[in-house]
Amino acid sequence: MKVLLAEVNVSEGRNADSIEKMRSALMRDGAIRLMEVNSDKDHNRTVFTYSGEPQAILEGTKRLAKSAIDLIDMKVHSGAHPRMGAVDVVPFIPARDVSNEEALEIARAFGKFLGELGVPVFYYEEAATRPERKSLVDIRKGEYEALAEKMKTETWKPDEGPHAFVAKSGATVTGVRFPLVAFNVNLATDDLDVGKQIVKAVRGATGGYQHVRAIALAIPGKKMVQVSMNLTNYTKTPIHRVFETIKSEAESRGVRVVDTELVGPIPVMALEDVMKFYLRCYHVSMEQLY
Amino acid sequence: MKVLLAEVNVSEGRNADSIEKMRSALMRDGAIRLMEVNSDKDHNRTVFTYSGEPQAILEGTKRLAKSAIDLIDMKVHSGAHPRMGAVDVVPFIPARDVSNEEALEIARAFGKFLGELGVPVFYYEEAATRPERKSLVDIRKGEYEALAEKMKTETWKPDEGPHAFVAKSGATVTGVRFPLVAFNVNLATDDLDVGKQIVKAVRGATGGYQHVRAIALAIPGKKMVQVSMNLTNYTKTPIHRVFETIKSEAESRGVRVVDTELVGPIPVMALEDVMKFYLRCYHVSMEQLY
Repeated sequence: MKVLLAEVNVSEGRNADSIEKMRSALMRDGAIRLMEVNSDKDHNRTVFTYSGEPQAILEGTKRLAKSAIDLIDMKVHSGAHPRMGAVDVVPFIPARDVSNEEALEIARAFGKFLGELGVPVFYYEEAATRPERKSLVDIRKGEYEALAEKMKTETWKPDEGPHAFVAKSGATVTGVRFPLVAFNVNLATDDLDVGKQIVKAVRGATGGYQHVRAIALAIPGKKMVQVSMNLTNYTKTPIHRVFETIKSEAESRGVRVVDTELVGPIPVMALEDVMKFYLRCYHVSMEQLY
Repeated sequence: MKVLLAEVNVSEGRNADSIEKMRSALMRDGAIRLMEVNSDKDHNRTVFTYSGEPQAILEGTKRLAKSAIDLIDMKVHSGAHPRMGAVDVVPFIPARDVSNEEALEIARAFGKFLGELGVPVFYYEEAATRPERKSLVDIRKGEYEALAEKMKTETWKPDEGPHAFVAKSGATVTGVRFPLVAFNVNLATDDLDVGKQIVKAVRGATGGYQHVRAIALAIPGKKMVQVSMNLTNYTKTPIHRVFETIKSEAESRGVRVVDTELVGPIPVMALEDVMKFYLRCYHVSMEQLY
């Protein structure tokens, strides 16, 4: 069965009535598996995470986006999280039996739909049409407030929709990205330096694993230090390898791993290597799961 | 999302045309995820394994069973595997978010359907209506050939359908059972005795884990011995615990575990304990998977 994931970030995190309207628009046809609705009042932002067959995801995302664009007015939006549109960012994430190409088709069909609704759309990550628009951070620089000026330049000609500033909706970023795994390891120490040394050892930017982004945090109430990570490609940098490295680095410093956390949605395929490594079942496939 | 599994055993393993007709009856509405179709010519038997939402499973199983009853004539059936009906055994297996009660309702709705088609039906396992009809082996004793005599007695009054021998269809056993995990461990030895000692250590019948059934087999071409197991309740006797016990028992005899095999469908919930144990992520839930 094909499974595509969508993670829709909308610029509304306070009005419960609006959030409920968006949710029910999304869920209308019963073909969507809603995984999480995470609203943050300070950010004034809600993230809808859901999965399903690719066509069902496309249709559900259209309904959700249409509802968000009707309900949200960016002219009066404020919030702590960076944003530039009512429907701010929509990554599509291939989860099971969905190729990159198929996910790209869905992202482009969604972009076209928004463009036809009159919203300027930029494709990012795997769907980017220019290298300088690959990263969300680059595209969103200056946020909503900078959009009017940016839209006057040729560099910011959108991939879909009008080449003009649209005050009510702002602009939307959509595309395809690889599934992330959010993985935290808690260490039995209150010495943040140990955490920082281990971060240095495992993250790509400082010579560690290519697809690890990491920071060290103190967890004061618990006398623990957390190595908080995003694994950006679990096929090339698998969970168990990062875990075993952290365990041995910690133990060489006389520090025990208390526990770990896998946070939020987990792509089932990321468990395959864990099973193979620990249980030595080298031929198991997550396709066997039910 | 609710997931129910069905494993339909029909008494036809040779006529490819009939098997294809049954398969296509099952799949007609696109709501079934077919996991395996396993036909055996010697057994003259096919096992269809599939999953989906409970109501979709009920409807698909009705279509498959109707087709099998039309196509198979037990009067002329022969094969090496024990059997007593065209639709021989149909266990429904709760996989995700389906309670035992809900699975029982599906099994009983299916039994009623078959009964109305004129097939005698016996409920077994969790659905059994008498203790002596809990085990499939007990119900099927004497096979199809003994049915005519058995059906004359009060003991063999069926739970659904006519209290009479029906020559063409035979009788069907259906019910609800807990998911099995088929788990094999391969040892680097050609000494079958080591395998037998380890079987004795881990299986319930000889003082080992309550929910382990096990045998030892020589794998001649490979100079290996296999401990071949069914874990009949992975929540109470989890995979990793059995694996670690076998590993330590083997190592104390100077024997290495080469690898392991998880065979056939695996209930996703069985991986939860594996993840928790090895990665120490004690709060992970398989509900996070997509």
